[in-house]
Amino acid sequence: MLAVVLSLLVFVGVTWAQYSPDWTSLDSRPLPSWYDDAKVGIFIHWGVFSVPAFGSEWFWWHWQGQKPPDQKCVSFMKQNYPPGFSYPEFAPDFHAQSFDPEKWADLFQASGAKYVVLTAKHHEGFTNWGSAHSWNWNSVDTGPHRDLVGDLGEAVRRRSLHYGLYNSLYEWFHPLYLKDKQNGFKTQEFVMNKLLPELRDMILRYRPEVIWSDGDWEAPDTYWNSTGFLAWLYNESPVKDTVVTNDRWGAGCACKHGGYYNCRDKYTPGQLPKHKWEKCTSVDTLSWGYRRNMEISELMDAPSIIEDLVSTVALGGNYLLNVGPTPYGTIPAVFQERLRGVGAWLKVNGEAIYASKPWRVQHENSTATVWYTAKDNVVFAVITGKSVSIDLQLLAPRPSATTKVTLLGSPLPLNWFPSDPSGITVVLPKQYFIGHPQAFTLKLEGFQ
Amino acid sequence: MLAVVLSLLVFVGVTWAQYSPDWTSLDSRPLPSWYDDAKVGIFIHWGVFSVPAFGSEWFWWHWQGQKPPDQKCVSFMKQNYPPGFSYPEFAPDFHAQSFDPEKWADLFQASGAKYVVLTAKHHEGFTNWGSAHSWNWNSVDTGPHRDLVGDLGEAVRRRSLHYGLYNSLYEWFHPLYLKDKQNGFKTQEFVMNKLLPELRDMILRYRPEVIWSDGDWEAPDTYWNSTGFLAWLYNESPVKDTVVTNDRWGAGCACKHGGYYNCRDKYTPGQLPKHKWEKCTSVDTLSWGYRRNMEISELMDAPSIIEDLVSTVALGGNYLLNVGPTPYGTIPAVFQERLRGVGAWLKVNGEAIYASKPWRVQHENSTATVWYTAKDNVVFAVITGKSVSIDLQLLAPRPSATTKVTLLGSPLPLNWFPSDPSGITVVLPKQYFIGHPQAFTLKLEGFQ
Amino acid sequence: MLAVVLSLLVFVGVTWAQYSPDWTSLDSRPLPSWYDDAKVGIFIHWGVFSVPAFGSEWFWWHWQGQKPPDQKCVSFMKQNYPPGFSYPEFAPDFHAQSFDPEKWADLFQASGAKYVVLTAKHHEGFTNWGSAHSWNWNSVDTGPHRDLVGDLGEAVRRRSLHYGLYNSLYEWFHPLYLKDKQNGFKTQEFVMNKLLPELRDMILRYRPEVIWSDGDWEAPDTYWNSTGFLAWLYNESPVKDTVVTNDRWGAGCACKHGGYYNCRDKYTPGQLPKHKWEKCTSVDTLSWGYRRNMEISELMDAPSIIEDLVSTVALGGNYLLNVGPTPYGTIPAVFQERLRGVGAWLKVNGEAIYASKPWRVQHENSTATVWYTAKDNVVFAVITGKSVSIDLQLLAPRPSATTKVTLLGSPLPLNWFPSDPSGITVVLPKQYFIGHPQAFTLKLEGFQ
Amino acid sequence: MLAVVLSLLVFVGVTWAQYSPDWTSLDSRPLPSWYDDAKVGIFIHWGVFSVPAFGSEWFWWHWQGQKPPDQKCVSFMKQNYPPGFSYPEFAPDFHAQSFDPEKWADLFQASGAKYVVLTAKHHEGFTNWGSAHSWNWNSVDTGPHRDLVGDLGEAVRRRSLHYGLYNSLYEWFHPLYLKDKQNGFKTQEFVMNKLLPELRDMILRYRPEVIWSDGDWEAPDTYWNSTGFLAWLYNESPVKDTVVTNDRWGAGCACKHGGYYNCRDKYTPGQLPKHKWEKCTSVDTLSWGYRRNMEISELMDAPSIIEDLVSTVALGGNYLLNVGPTPYGTIPAVFQERLRGVGAWLKVNGEAIYASKPWRVQHENSTATVWYTAKDNVVFAVITGKSVSIDLQLLAPRPSATTKVTLLGSPLPLNWFPSDPSGITVVLPKQYFIGHPQAFTLKLEGFQ
Repeated sequence: MLAVVLSLLVFVGVTWAQYSPDWTSLDSRPLPSWYDDAKVGIFIHWGVFSVPAFGSEWFWWHWQGQKPPDQKCVSFMKQNYPPGFSYPEFAPDFHAQSFDPEKWADLFQASGAKYVVLTAKHHEGFTNWGSAHSWNWNSVDTGPHRDLVGDLGEAVRRRSLHYGLYNSLYEWFHPLYLKDKQNGFKTQEFVMNKLLPELRDMILRYRPEVIWSDGDWEAPDTYWNSTGFLAWLYNESPVKDTVVTNDRWGAGCACKHGGYYNCRDKYTPGQLPKHKWEKCTSVDTLSWGYRRNMEISELMDAPSIIEDLVSTVALGGNYLLNVGPTPYGTIPAVFQERLRGVGAWLKVNGEAIYASKPWRVQHENSTATVWYTAKDNVVFAVITGKSVSIDLQLLAPRPSATTKVTLLGSPLPLNWFPSDPSGITVVLPKQYFIGHPQAFTLKLEGFQ
Repeated sequence: MLAVVLSLLVFVGVTWAQYSPDWTSLDSRPLPSWYDDAKVGIFIHWGVFSVPAFGSEWFWWHWQGQKPPDQKCVSFMKQNYPPGFSYPEFAPDFHAQSFDPEKWADLFQASGAKYVVLTAKHHEGFTNWGSAHSWNWNSVDTGPHRDLVGDLGEAVRRRSLHYGLYNSLYEWFHPLYLKDKQNGFKTQEFVMNKLLPELRDMILRYRPEVIWSDGDWEAPDTYWNSTGFLAWLYNESPVKDTVVTNDRWGAGCACKHGGYYNCRDKYTPGQLPKHKWEKCTSVDTLSWGYRRNMEISELMDAPSIIEDLVSTVALGGNYLLNVGPTPYGTIPAVFQERLRGVGAWLKVNGEAIYASKPWRVQHENSTATVWYTAKDNVVFAVITGKSVSIDLQLLAPRPSATTKVTLLGSPLPLNWFPSDPSGITVVLPKQYFIGHPQAFTLKLEGFQ
Repeated sequence: MLAVVLSLLVFVGVTWAQYSPDWTSLDSRPLPSWYDDAKVGIFIHWGVFSVPAFGSEWFWWHWQGQKPPDQKCVSFMKQNYPPGFSYPEFAPDFHAQSFDPEKWADLFQASGAKYVVLTAKHHEGFTNWGSAHSWNWNSVDTGPHRDLVGDLGEAVRRRSLHYGLYNSLYEWFHPLYLKDKQNGFKTQEFVMNKLLPELRDMILRYRPEVIWSDGDWEAPDTYWNSTGFLAWLYNESPVKDTVVTNDRWGAGCACKHGGYYNCRDKYTPGQLPKHKWEKCTSVDTLSWGYRRNMEISELMDAPSIIEDLVSTVALGGNYLLNVGPTPYGTIPAVFQERLRGVGAWLKVNGEAIYASKPWRVQHENSTATVWYTAKDNVVFAVITGKSVSIDLQLLAPRPSATTKVTLLGSPLPLNWFPSDPSGITVVLPKQYFIGHPQAFTLKLEGFQ
Repeated sequence: MLAVVLSLLVFVGVTWAQYSPDWTSLDSRPLPSWYDDAKVGIFIHWGVFSVPAFGSEWFWWHWQGQKPPDQKCVSFMKQNYPPGFSYPEFAPDFHAQSFDPEKWADLFQASGAKYVVLTAKHHEGFTNWGSAHSWNWNSVDTGPHRDLVGDLGEAVRRRSLHYGLYNSLYEWFHPLYLKDKQNGFKTQEFVMNKLLPELRDMILRYRPEVIWSDGDWEAPDTYWNSTGFLAWLYNESPVKDTVVTNDRWGAGCACKHGGYYNCRDKYTPGQLPKHKWEKCTSVDTLSWGYRRNMEISELMDAPSIIEDLVSTVALGGNYLLNVGPTPYGTIPAVFQERLRGVGAWLKVNGEAIYASKPWRVQHENSTATVWYTAKDNVVFAVITGKSVSIDLQLLAPRPSATTKVTLLGSPLPLNWFPSDPSGITVVLPKQYFIGHPQAFTLKLEGFQ
C-alpha cells in the first residue's frame, strides 16, 4: 500500500529537480533543438475508428455521445449493423493483417518528414500497444494482436526519424472518467488509476520524443495533474533531454502553456508568432482517420499541401501532415502519392525548409505568391502561386555586390536586374517549366 | 488524492466495528440462519467461455495458459479459427439474445432450490454486469449488452429465492495480476486498483446474499486483503446481516476460514463435519460451463443427483447444483429436465430436506441404502438405493408407544414391526412403485 | 445436345422394363420386405435452418415467404441481424465442426432403430452433399465443407442400419421453381434442369434405400414427372430391388400412391390401415429442426415416445422418430437421452416390435392400456398405461392347454387365470416395478 | 419438354435471318458506328474477389486452382482465415453499403469516357444481378442484396453513356463446367443449362451495347455455341442494331473473329491494325480487381494513361481503362484522381480524340514524341513526351497556303515556319507551360 502511495506521489510532484510542477517553471524549459530543425512531420490516426471508417475518427462520439444534427453515424449503424451492436465489437475487425512498418517508414522517409507521430491512444481509449491498464481494449489483446506502437517505432527509428506519440487525456466513454466528470472533476479516479500510470508506462517503454497531448479541454490541468506529469517528464523520464510536448494540458492551456503550441487543429496564424508552433493538418480535409468513402474532391492535392507547408515554415511553424491508414494496415495509395509528392518537392527544395528560420519578411505578393525563409546568410524565396510570368519580381530582397540567384535543383545562376521601386526581377529559364512541380525556390545569396 | 487514499483505507481495515480484520474475529461470526435452512441452491456458470463451449469453462487457460497434455483446446482453435484469433474476440458472440430471466427463475423455483448463485466474474475476468473497472470486458459493453447480474437477480428475488454471486479473486491473464504475481505477490496493484473496488461496487449494487469466492489459491489471503474485505462486508456493507460467504479467501483458507466451507469442488466428507459446509457439483460431470458437445453419458441423471443431494443434506451440507447456460441465453433442455426432476422429488420429499438437521445416525445400509435427517422430533429416512424388497428394515430408529410411520406423499400410515436385533421393519405398499421416482422418504414420528 | 435430350428421355419414361410410368403399375410394386421388419427409424432434420435454430426448420418461409400472424421470425431477424441480411448468409455458420458420424451412428444403433433418414435437401434447397446442380448452396462448397450425406451413410451402414434420404421436391425460393409456379406449372424448367438431374445423381451416388419425398403439394405429380422418375427408380436404378418410397409425389398422391403411406405428418390412424404406413414424428413437438430455445415441456418424454411407437406398430405402422442436430454437428443431450431410453426399452421388448404383425385385436383398455402385436404363433401384449394393479386383466386373448405367459426381460413364467367374461388375468411379480420403465410386455404363447 | 428443346434450338441456330451462325457471315457485320466514335471507355472489375482484395481478381484460382509458385494467396488464407474457409463465404462481406451509382456515373462522365463496361459475371461465376441461373451466388441473394448491373446501368444511361457488360464464358469451379471439361468438351451441360440461358436473360433484361466476352480460351467456339449465340444476338436480340462484341468466343478466335478485337489483355500493336480494336488496360498495373494493399508505384499515373490513350487512338483503337471498386461500393480516391485527370485533359484535347480517324502517319519522334490523329480535313498532333524545347519540329505535316496552327485550349494562332528537310517548326508560347499537363495538342488546319 505504501508503495502505491509513494509511486503516486511522484506525479503529485514531490521532486527535487530542475523543473518544478508549475507553469512558470515548466514553460521556461527550452525546446530541444531537433524539433525546430525537423520542420516536417507525419501524423497518423489509426485505431478502432478505422474499422467503421465512416464520418471521421470521432465516429463513436457522433454515434453514441453527442450526435450532430445529421445523425449520419446513427443512420450508418442502423442500416449496416444489428441492433445492439457496440463499438468494442469493431475491434476484432481491426486486423492490420497487411501492416508492414518497414513499408510505412520507407514512405515517411520518402515524404521528407523528419518525425512521425502515431496515435498511441485516441479518445476511444483503445491503446495501440499492449497496455496493462487497458486490458482487452488494446491492439495486442484484440484486433491486430500486435504492438503497433513498438513495431512502427522501430522501423521509423531505423531510418533516423524522430518518433512521437499522440495520447488523448480524456476517453469519451471510460466509466471512471465519466464518474470524475460527473463529480465536477473533483475526484481523480481516472487520472490516478488509469491515465497517469498508463502514460508513464508508455513513455518508459517507447521513449517517444514527442508527446502530442490531446483531449484536455473538458477539465483543468489540475485535474489531469499535468504540471506534475510534465515535471516528471522533464526531470526524470528517460526522454527528459529530447522530448518535446505540445500545449494541450487542460482547459485554457492551448496557445499558452507547454512545449510548442498547436493552438487549435489546423491553426494558421496571420503573422509571425512569438512562440514555436506546429500546424497539424490532414490530407483528408474531412477526417483524420481513414474513411472508406472519401472523395478525391475532399482531399488536399500535392500543390496545396506544399503551399501550406511552405507558408507554415515561413511563419516559423512545423508542419505535421496527417494520413489515416486502413484497418488492414495499409496506407491508401492516394495518401502515398501525396506524401511522395511532397517528398519529391522537398528533395529539390528542402534546403529552404529544414533548419531554416523565418526571414525579415515572410510573405509577399507581387507578380507571384512568394514565401521567404532564411538560413545563415542565405534567403530563400519560394514561389507557390499558380500563374507567374517568366520575369519574376521580388520586392523585399535588397541586392548587393555579391548577389547571386539560383534555382534550387538547377546549377546555373539566373539573370536578374534591380527592380523598381525595390527588390529585383529574376529572369526564369524558358525551358524549365514543362512538367515541373508548381512551387519552386530561388536561392538568394548576397542579399540583405 | 486524499479521497482515494481514504477510500482505500476502508479495505485496509481501519474500522471501529463488530468484527476486526483477523480470522479469529471473522470466523466467530454466526452464519445467517437462512442459509442452513435453504439446503438447495442452483449454481450457474455463464461467461465468454460459454461461446467456445468446448472442454470446460477453463477453456482460455487450457488453450493459452497451462495446457493439459492432450492440448485439445489448442487443436480446437487451430482447426476452427484463424491464426491470431484471441479470446476477447469470442465476446461479441456471447449474444444472450434469448435470455429470459423470468424463465430461468421459474425453472430455478421449480427445481426446489432456495438460492441461486451466478458467476458474476469467472477467472477470465469478464464481468456479467457493467463494471466500471472492467471497461469493454463486461456484458454491457460487449456481447449481451445487458446487465445479466442485475436482470437475473430481480427475477430470482421476485420469487423469494436468495441471490448470490460468484466472484473469482484472480484473473488468469489480467496484466496487473500477472505483474503482482511476478513480484511474488509483494505488490497489490491488481487488488487495490481492480479487484477490491470492483467487488465493493458489485456488492453495493446487487446486495448479494452469498459471496461465493474462488480463484484464491495462488496467493495468501494477505495479498487479497481478504480479512479487510470481510470486515467491511460484515460490519458496514448493506448485506452485513444476511450475507454468507464461503472459505476461498487465500491459499490455506479452504476448510479453515470464512463462512461455510466448500473445501474443494465436489467435496464429499466421509462423516458428519463439524462446520457448516456446501457441496457444489455440476450436472455435467466434465464441466461447469456449457459444452456444445456434451454426451448424455457425461451427465448426472436425476436419481444420481437426488441421491447426492440427500446424502449431502444428511451430512449437514447444502447442495449447490450447477448448470451451464448457452451463449444465446437458454438453459439446455436436458438441464431443465434434471432441475425439474429434482423439483418434483422435493415437492414430495422436501419436508425431509429443508430446514432439517443431521440426525444421530446419518446413514445405514441394510436391506436398502438409507439416509437420515431430522427436524424437531421427527426423523426422516430417505431410501435412495436401486433395489429394495417390499419389507424394508431400518436399524437405527428406536420405536416408542407413539410411533407412526408414513410415506411422504401418501396420507396412509404404514404397517411396521420391531426388527431384530434393532430398529423396525416397514411394510411398503404393494402398488406404490410403478412409475415412482426411485428415492422415497419415510417419515418417522415418535422415534428416538 | 443429343446426349442431353437422350438423358432426359430416360425420365420421360421410354424404357422397356417391369414398371411403366403410371400409378397403376407403380403402385403394384411390392414393398421390399426389410422395411416392414425394421419398424423403427430415426429421422434427422439438418440444414441451414439449424443455424438460426429459431421457430422451426420453416424459418426462411416464415421470415420471408408466407409469414404467420405472430411474425416472430421477422422480429427475430430485426432484433438480431443487420438490415438486409439474407438467408444464404447463414450458411457459413453451419460449421458442423463437431460432427462425428460414428458417434451419431452409435447413438442411432443404441436407439434400436433399424433405419436412418437424413434430410439430404429440405425446402430451403441447400444440399447436404456437394451437388453439382446446387453450386455454392451445398454443404461441401460452404458451411461444413463436408459430404454430410456420404459421411453419415457410411457410418450408418457400417452398423447394418438401412440408410434413407429425405428430398424436398419443391424449393421455396428457387427462381426456376418460382417461374414454373408463376406459369401455372405448365413449364418444367426447375424439374428438368435442377430437380431430376440432382435427384438421380443423389441416388447413383448414395444408393439410399428410402426416398422420403416431400414438398410435393403445390403441383400435380405430372409437373414433378413423378411416375417417370419412379419407373426409373424401380426399373433401372442401382437400388431398384431394395428401395422404398413414400407417398408424397404430387398434390393428391398422399395416402393414395407411391410406396408406403405417410399421409400427413404425425398421422395416426383410428384403426388398422390396409396399406403399409409410417408415422413420422419429432421429439421436439414444435419443430423438426433444432431450436436453440426449446423448453423441456415442449419435448416428448421417453414414456410418451414408447407408447406412441407401440401403438403405431400395433396398427401396422413403422415409427420414424425425428431429432434435430445442432449447426455444430452434435445431437443435443436431451435427444440422446430420449433415443437411448427408447433403445433400452427395445432391448428388452424388441421381440414384440421388430418383424411383428398386427394381431386380431390391436388395442384394449380394461385394467390397463394394452397394445397387441403378433409374430408366428406368439402374441405380445404391451402395457403402456400409467396405473395398473398387480392383477392385470387381458380381454382378447383366448387361452389354451399350452398357454404360457412370460414378461419380456424376465425368464420366469407368470401365474394367470381365466378371466370373466373373457380373456385372462395375469399376476404381475410384486417386486418387479421399482425403477422399471413404465411400458412392459407380456409374451403370450399358446393363445389364439 | 418440347418447349425446352425448341428454346434451345434458337441457340443452335435455326433462324431465317440476316446473319447465319458461321464466322464468315458473322464477321461480315459492320460495327455499329457509335463505338468507333466513342474512343474512351471505363472498365470495372467488381465481384466477390473484391472482398479478399488480395493479389488480383484471380484470387480464387491462385488459391485453389492452379497456384503460382509463390503461393501467396494460399499463404494469405492460411494466415488470415480458419482452416476450411471457402470462397463463397467471402460473399456476405461484399456489402456494397456505400455504393452510389450516381456518384460512379458522375465520375465516369467526368473522365471523358463515352461507354462503361461492368463485369456482370467474372470467372468466379458470381453474377452482379439476380440471375435465376445462379441462385444464391449473385449480388441480390447475398452480399450487396442489390441489382448492381441494373442500378449502375440506369445511372450510366441517364448521362448518355453507352453501357456494356463483361461476361465470362467459363467459370473456374462450376461443377457442370468441370464435368464438360473432363469430357473433353464433348458434352455441353454447362453451356446449355447455365451459360446460354443466363446470358440471354442478361441481355433481355439489361440490353447492353457491349458484350465483352472473356474466359473462352479453354474450349473451341463450338463448345460455347458462340456462332449460334451471336446469330441470335445480331438477328433477334433487342440490341441487334447497336450492340458491339469483342473477339473472345473460343480458342483461336482472338484477333480473328467477332466484333472488334481485343487480342490479348493490354495488347499494343506495333503499327496500324486493319481491324477495329480496343486496348483494355488497368490503372492498377497488377490487378483488374481492387487490391487492399496496392502501392502507388504499382499504379499508372495520369500522364502515362494519357500517353497510352493517345497512342491507342492514333493507331485506330479504343481505350478501355479499368478501375476496381471496393467491396463496400466506393471507387478508391486514387482511381478517382486518375479518371478526373484524364477527363480534364480530354475536356481540352477531346477534339483530337473522339470520332477521330488514324492519319497518314501515326507517330513520329523528332524534338518530341508526337501522335497524329485526323478528323475531316484537320490533323491533330498530340505531344506526349517529357522534354520539348519551345521550338517544336513536326516532320510529317505538309503545309499549304491556308495552313493554320493552334494549340487546343487556347484561341491564338501560333507562329510556325517550314522545317528542313520536311514539315514545320512551331513556336510554342512562352508562358504557357507552368502548371500545364504534359501532353498537349496542336491542331493543324490546311495541311496534307
